[in-house]
Amino acid sequence: MSSNQLDKKSQAWSALFSEPMSELVKRYTASVFFDQRLWRADIEGSLAHAAMLARQGIISPQDQSDIERGMAQVKAEIESGEFVWKSELEDVHLNIEARLTQLVGDAGKRLHTGRSRNDQVATDVRLWLRSEIDQIAPLLADMQRALLAVASHHTETVMPGFTHMQVAQPVSFAHHLLAYVEMFARDAERLADVRKRVNRLPLGAAALAGTSYPLDRESVAKALGFDGVCQNSLDAVSDRDFAIEFTAFASLVMVHVSRLAEEIVLWMSQNFGFIDLSDRYCTGSSIMPQKRNPDVAELARGKSGRVVGHLMGLITLMKGQPLTYNKDNQEDKEPLFDTVDTVKDTLRIMAEMVGGEVDPATGTRTGGLKVKAEAMQQAARRGYATATDLADYLVKKGLPFRDAHEVVAHAVKEGLKLGVDLSDLPLATLQSFHASIGDDVFEVLSLTGSLNARNVIGGTAPNQARAQIERHRARLA
Amino acid sequence: MSSNQLDKKSQAWSALFSEPMSELVKRYTASVFFDQRLWRADIEGSLAHAAMLARQGIISPQDQSDIERGMAQVKAEIESGEFVWKSELEDVHLNIEARLTQLVGDAGKRLHTGRSRNDQVATDVRLWLRSEIDQIAPLLADMQRALLAVASHHTETVMPGFTHMQVAQPVSFAHHLLAYVEMFARDAERLADVRKRVNRLPLGAAALAGTSYPLDRESVAKALGFDGVCQNSLDAVSDRDFAIEFTAFASLVMVHVSRLAEEIVLWMSQNFGFIDLSDRYCTGSSIMPQKRNPDVAELARGKSGRVVGHLMGLITLMKGQPLTYNKDNQEDKEPLFDTVDTVKDTLRIMAEMVGGEVDPATGTRTGGLKVKAEAMQQAARRGYATATDLADYLVKKGLPFRDAHEVVAHAVKEGLKLGVDLSDLPLATLQSFHASIGDDVFEVLSLTGSLNARNVIGGTAPNQARAQIERHRARLA
Amino acid sequence: MSSNQLDKKSQAWSALFSEPMSELVKRYTASVFFDQRLWRADIEGSLAHAAMLARQGIISPQDQSDIERGMAQVKAEIESGEFVWKSELEDVHLNIEARLTQLVGDAGKRLHTGRSRNDQVATDVRLWLRSEIDQIAPLLADMQRALLAVASHHTETVMPGFTHMQVAQPVSFAHHLLAYVEMFARDAERLADVRKRVNRLPLGAAALAGTSYPLDRESVAKALGFDGVCQNSLDAVSDRDFAIEFTAFASLVMVHVSRLAEEIVLWMSQNFGFIDLSDRYCTGSSIMPQKRNPDVAELARGKSGRVVGHLMGLITLMKGQPLTYNKDNQEDKEPLFDTVDTVKDTLRIMAEMVGGEVDPATGTRTGGLKVKAEAMQQAARRGYATATDLADYLVKKGLPFRDAHEVVAHAVKEGLKLGVDLSDLPLATLQSFHASIGDDVFEVLSLTGSLNARNVIGGTAPNQARAQIERHRARLA
Amino acid sequence: MSSNQLDKKSQAWSALFSEPMSELVKRYTASVFFDQRLWRADIEGSLAHAAMLARQGIISPQDQSDIERGMAQVKAEIESGEFVWKSELEDVHLNIEARLTQLVGDAGKRLHTGRSRNDQVATDVRLWLRSEIDQIAPLLADMQRALLAVASHHTETVMPGFTHMQVAQPVSFAHHLLAYVEMFARDAERLADVRKRVNRLPLGAAALAGTSYPLDRESVAKALGFDGVCQNSLDAVSDRDFAIEFTAFASLVMVHVSRLAEEIVLWMSQNFGFIDLSDRYCTGSSIMPQKRNPDVAELARGKSGRVVGHLMGLITLMKGQPLTYNKDNQEDKEPLFDTVDTVKDTLRIMAEMVGGEVDPATGTRTGGLKVKAEAMQQAARRGYATATDLADYLVKKGLPFRDAHEVVAHAVKEGLKLGVDLSDLPLATLQSFHASIGDDVFEVLSLTGSLNARNVIGGTAPNQARAQIERHRARLA
Repeated sequence: MSSNQLDKKSQAWSALFSEPMSELVKRYTASVFFDQRLWRADIEGSLAHAAMLARQGIISPQDQSDIERGMAQVKAEIESGEFVWKSELEDVHLNIEARLTQLVGDAGKRLHTGRSRNDQVATDVRLWLRSEIDQIAPLLADMQRALLAVASHHTETVMPGFTHMQVAQPVSFAHHLLAYVEMFARDAERLADVRKRVNRLPLGAAALAGTSYPLDRESVAKALGFDGVCQNSLDAVSDRDFAIEFTAFASLVMVHVSRLAEEIVLWMSQNFGFIDLSDRYCTGSSIMPQKRNPDVAELARGKSGRVVGHLMGLITLMKGQPLTYNKDNQEDKEPLFDTVDTVKDTLRIMAEMVGGEVDPATGTRTGGLKVKAEAMQQAARRGYATATDLADYLVKKGLPFRDAHEVVAHAVKEGLKLGVDLSDLPLATLQSFHASIGDDVFEVLSLTGSLNARNVIGGTAPNQARAQIERHRARLA
Repeated sequence: MSSNQLDKKSQAWSALFSEPMSELVKRYTASVFFDQRLWRADIEGSLAHAAMLARQGIISPQDQSDIERGMAQVKAEIESGEFVWKSELEDVHLNIEARLTQLVGDAGKRLHTGRSRNDQVATDVRLWLRSEIDQIAPLLADMQRALLAVASHHTETVMPGFTHMQVAQPVSFAHHLLAYVEMFARDAERLADVRKRVNRLPLGAAALAGTSYPLDRESVAKALGFDGVCQNSLDAVSDRDFAIEFTAFASLVMVHVSRLAEEIVLWMSQNFGFIDLSDRYCTGSSIMPQKRNPDVAELARGKSGRVVGHLMGLITLMKGQPLTYNKDNQEDKEPLFDTVDTVKDTLRIMAEMVGGEVDPATGTRTGGLKVKAEAMQQAARRGYATATDLADYLVKKGLPFRDAHEVVAHAVKEGLKLGVDLSDLPLATLQSFHASIGDDVFEVLSLTGSLNARNVIGGTAPNQARAQIERHRARLA
Repeated sequence: MSSNQLDKKSQAWSALFSEPMSELVKRYTASVFFDQRLWRADIEGSLAHAAMLARQGIISPQDQSDIERGMAQVKAEIESGEFVWKSELEDVHLNIEARLTQLVGDAGKRLHTGRSRNDQVATDVRLWLRSEIDQIAPLLADMQRALLAVASHHTETVMPGFTHMQVAQPVSFAHHLLAYVEMFARDAERLADVRKRVNRLPLGAAALAGTSYPLDRESVAKALGFDGVCQNSLDAVSDRDFAIEFTAFASLVMVHVSRLAEEIVLWMSQNFGFIDLSDRYCTGSSIMPQKRNPDVAELARGKSGRVVGHLMGLITLMKGQPLTYNKDNQEDKEPLFDTVDTVKDTLRIMAEMVGGEVDPATGTRTGGLKVKAEAMQQAARRGYATATDLADYLVKKGLPFRDAHEVVAHAVKEGLKLGVDLSDLPLATLQSFHASIGDDVFEVLSLTGSLNARNVIGGTAPNQARAQIERHRARLA
Repeated sequence: MSSNQLDKKSQAWSALFSEPMSELVKRYTASVFFDQRLWRADIEGSLAHAAMLARQGIISPQDQSDIERGMAQVKAEIESGEFVWKSELEDVHLNIEARLTQLVGDAGKRLHTGRSRNDQVATDVRLWLRSEIDQIAPLLADMQRALLAVASHHTETVMPGFTHMQVAQPVSFAHHLLAYVEMFARDAERLADVRKRVNRLPLGAAALAGTSYPLDRESVAKALGFDGVCQNSLDAVSDRDFAIEFTAFASLVMVHVSRLAEEIVLWMSQNFGFIDLSDRYCTGSSIMPQKRNPDVAELARGKSGRVVGHLMGLITLMKGQPLTYNKDNQEDKEPLFDTVDTVKDTLRIMAEMVGGEVDPATGTRTGGLKVKAEAMQQAARRGYATATDLADYLVKKGLPFRDAHEVVAHAVKEGLKLGVDLSDLPLATLQSFHASIGDDVFEVLSLTGSLNARNVIGGTAPNQARAQIERHRARLA
């Protein structure tokens, strides 16, 4: 066996260099401390590459089997924590290849035939991200299921629907939660779209121009479960669209989480008092003995900044970069890793806090949102939430909508003067605003009357909400 | 006919208000000066709504025909420039409805039955954006066609492929341009995905909770060409995901443009001299008489900042917003409008600058990139671009890749010392680095030898580039 | 007089160009429709330049006086609206110079001696921005004065202080508003710091390298009120730090506004009901007759996104730009202009909405925040706001703080069980948690007792708030 | 001694909680793994707090001395690595306080008297950031010194000055580098301005409202070297302006670095060949044996994205947050820490790569930029760099500038036709464009003639550059 040029990192570059790398530079450029989390993808990709090299007769069957044997040991060492990661070997790829070559000699050195770290790292990141996507998709589904679990008990629980944070019209709490189901469902759609563009194989692009070995790229793609190969080698090694697109997806998830979290924080505030959270999702204060804070929701809201920051960072990174691979691109990994971690942790904890912990045996949920239906209902009685119902009532009696609107405004003014809701005004008073108002108006002015009336697809009527819950459950089954 | 409450804006809100809006507030909150560009969508949406109201028996056939007659006149007035936009009517919706009511009386007032400005504006923006998407898609295709047109003449034009802006390996100019075709093709895929989520009908959500009128939302969706209806009314009026997702798409387009623009600026710089631009795409200097500047490419690169800024602005806007509609959302329009304008103008001008103006009659192109093939080729001869070929040559002679890599490094070192390319070293010298090197090495060390060797899918070999051009042309046909 | 090369724009570049600029390019690169707002700075800068050229003997006194006469007319034409802005002259500079040359012939052509549009535009933007800064500074002071005006009536108005949106401890409404005075005061400090770096003269840098004319740059700086000259010509024409730094300042202003706006929206919500706004700052709904929405606060909150977007856009613009002037930089203007407009409008309207309109004659304020002190106080009674006071009370009786904290937690638990505040528990019950509790505890548990107790610099005690109000008023006088 | 409630974290909140925190929540909300880097500031702040408590008679002298003894041991344990950080104690503050209480009993429990984690963490972060600022300032000075060291050898080294990446006018390499000195000098100014706003003491704000203990906040401020105290307790615990402002400063530093890095990458590219870097700052390729890549410059350019992302993240975090402390704010630390690390590492490595390693004994520098003066000069001969000089020459002969500009454009056209520089055209040819051209024109058309001519403050003439170098050195001494 010839000497192992990877024993030290600089030897991977050979004899051209006349002085060792500065220590400062080593630390600044090393990536092994964050990119080692790609190790599983790196080995998986290398094995598929080696198998193809052997099929194509580029390396011998013996080489392939040596590589497989060596990689099995490398894998065992990493899993057991024995593997020694060396920063002087710069990254996960050289660390693994160096150890492989220690273990199996020349076969290890032949593994890099027809590939470069440029297409290797692009392949690793895509393999890794695809597997993370395949974990995030069910977490998004769990988030929706948690919302549906709560919603299913509250299709008739009335709360004030707000616009401009002013009481607008009565809605059910189920209907409100279903809005978030829609958001996370769209996120899931987007995730599936992102996956299509992540799931392309760069390997075979080599350093940038393709390779002179007769590789069979499509067989490698198939072996690794890719939908196809990247069709241009220059693009393959320099494209980071998929990372940006994934982070844009994640930013939208976090925007949705931030909205839900904002509402949970408000609902939990004493001035709303719409919900309570289980102690296990609250924290206290080191100074104020009475405090129970919705820390999880606040942190989740705050973490939207983190993910949005990563999106901005990645776009800034790519802006104006000439082709092809530039070292700038190494900066794609930490934001991507942190984005994945943040989205996964956040979805998991928000789903549990909303819908409760699921007993894996029985599927029952414990510890989710505690809904204070009475407080919600009382709040809905403030702010003349059924004023629009009165206007619609007048339209049905023949007034043009704009005229009805004006009539009701006068009635509200009277209510404000007297400090009472419209439904508390005597019929005579109501009739003084418009003669067509009859006894049937009080049903119209009730919260449940208002709710039931909005019986249009996507409306807040209980039977509509129930239909939506069924639809979503079927979709997620 | 009853009085027209829309003659003045505040009357749309009726009698509840005891003092007029502050002038400062009017100016701060008015949107008509930017949202009037939605007028066509607004009328289209209103007509579909009115038709449905009539079908459902909510308004009379006479009302519907009055509305249609009135709207025809409004449309004519806007198209002719006669229409008087009033800022005291705040937005495009009230301006049009007020004029309609002036023209047709009570029928105009009945148009707003069962809807609110909240679902109306959401519908208008989606209709408008869909039509813009349908204009951007062909512009993305044109951009790709322009690149293909140039590429088709340069599958054998050799230039240096760069990594780290250092000469890496020879590639063809066609292959380089094809990398950008891949990027814009992905953008087109993303655009199609965005469109699916834009193309949902919010109308029927009314203010936030749905409506008590028996609307047939699905028939409106069908009439307006939507793929379906928004399934939750609260979400329908407060969702701006589609605007963020579109702007994220646009940011990626602009990142791609910025990369191409950066290269055009570099290639046009005297130190590269790889291309020239037609005078019509250059500007001069008011002080330096010799200057011909690639202003268009620079501006296009700079405009990436504008679009990325809009993306960040929209995300910031939505972060932490509680449900449902909040006035903050009015701020979605200007960034969205400017993003659309910027992407359209930029794609159009970049396509023309790269591929030339297309004669609509003959399809011939004039005035695109002028390629200086000789300068490209000369540049490819610098920097030992075929060193990897020599390493691969040695691997085929039996050396492990890592050993071959080291041998070549020594040869390069010698070349550097003598100031000559590898192909200029005598055979004997080359053999001093490894005995297995034979006469056939010089073909391997030639630019065209190197190019032809990379004959793998996505590689730079001319026949691969030709196959890609064919594939793309078929795809875009 | 020789022919006027500026009659058409392309002639500014002379004979080198063999074809006219494409119409598409003209539209894409023209800036006159947005940069014309620099006209006043442009003329001011030109006059100072011409005066210096004459002083240095570079142009004749006659030329200078011709230029002054011509510019006076140009100024009059622009002010009266007669001036014809031509997009084929691209920008404000060429438009003005071309008109000047029409008016005064060769003297006009001599104005550009020793300068370039690169240093001219840099000078114009700085002059303009400085004058805007000098308008924003008093608006920031007005914002603080408005807050102080309200605060001065509410040093004893108790509201719940929140952490995590949970009731924490009682604070005065004055104290709460004073927190915003601190924020805007810091913004004013930052603005003064930005001004120092804006107020440097680039003129004299010419195209990029300085000029061969014996300019006296320092006298021009003095004449234009600059603090000094830019000391490096390459930096002078390509530096946009000042625009980024200003926009970062503006982003912080808008973040502060967004926080105050968020609170106004919440306080106005029926579930808080802490304040009301004058009708003139509210808007209604076209569908819900009862609505009075705090649109201004919401829009102001939303506009934070716009300004933050501009900051990100400008940073993206400059990232990775090689020296010196690149056309990308033209994209600095629109975001900067819009940032200035947004900050000015927002500060003006927020100050008025909070503090009311100021009668210029008497200085009295009408129409500001209506404070509902009773509702605030009631809210402060919820949530055991004085629990910390009880802990502190126990510490004064000799318990270590951590032990006292635990004792109070038990008392709160009892209060929660009984549904009453700590102050409503009988002394005996309180004593059951710790024997050292005496009769004096009830003063400690009262809202005003709690407020008065926090009598440390920066604390919420009324006399502290009054002292702060005095300090701020003196500072702003 | 009473029991230690901090043995377990949840006990810090006492008996109010009926179930333990979920494991998921513990992990999601714990900060000790990143905030432990604040330990030194935490201890420093605690000691100053304890000393003041003793001075004010709030704790006994014995308590203070116990706390000092205990903290000395805690410090020793942390420095030696023996300290056991526990995630169940959530953060650095509780970890240290819990250990202190184990060591010294009740005195440890009394330390938290009159403070809260809210003002404690705000104090820690400010103390820590101030000390980092005081390390960054000299790094910014070193960066400037490195540029000056190279510049001092190249005041007469001619390179092409570019606008639009087109050759514009000759400049010296010193002059070019001095542009970056200006940028970093402005950054240093900004850093000093940021420091003023960082250096304010929040301690004494307690949880949010101030405290009922008679604290002497100003003596604590003095003891800790703060310029003063935060004047509003609510603001003190919720203000993160200083973090945003610091990150905005850092973003500008990184934008400047990205511009310099872009140029280094270009200059090192074979098509420029203006400079070379020492091997110790380059990396090679695992596949291309000839490669020497300027990785450090590329990574530094890429890292601008990271810092800009943090700025965006922090702004998003704070947008719309109601007062006072919300858990979102915990998310301020990681971006701030990473920003500090990135700026420090980047400045250090860029200074060394540009100016070389400084021998601490002799002050000599080795290994900095290798300037290829010949290549620079040759490049300056391309592109008619002295065309403006010819125009200025004609102005001095009496032509208006605009006319001279046109004459020269014709001469350039002729040069282009013949493929020669203006200085290579025969006098007769030059005279055919304007009769006033004489023999003295050739000095004007030379590179050094052009350089020397720009002898205005901030111009590229060698004596101007030398004067600037002196000025900067005096400033930095």
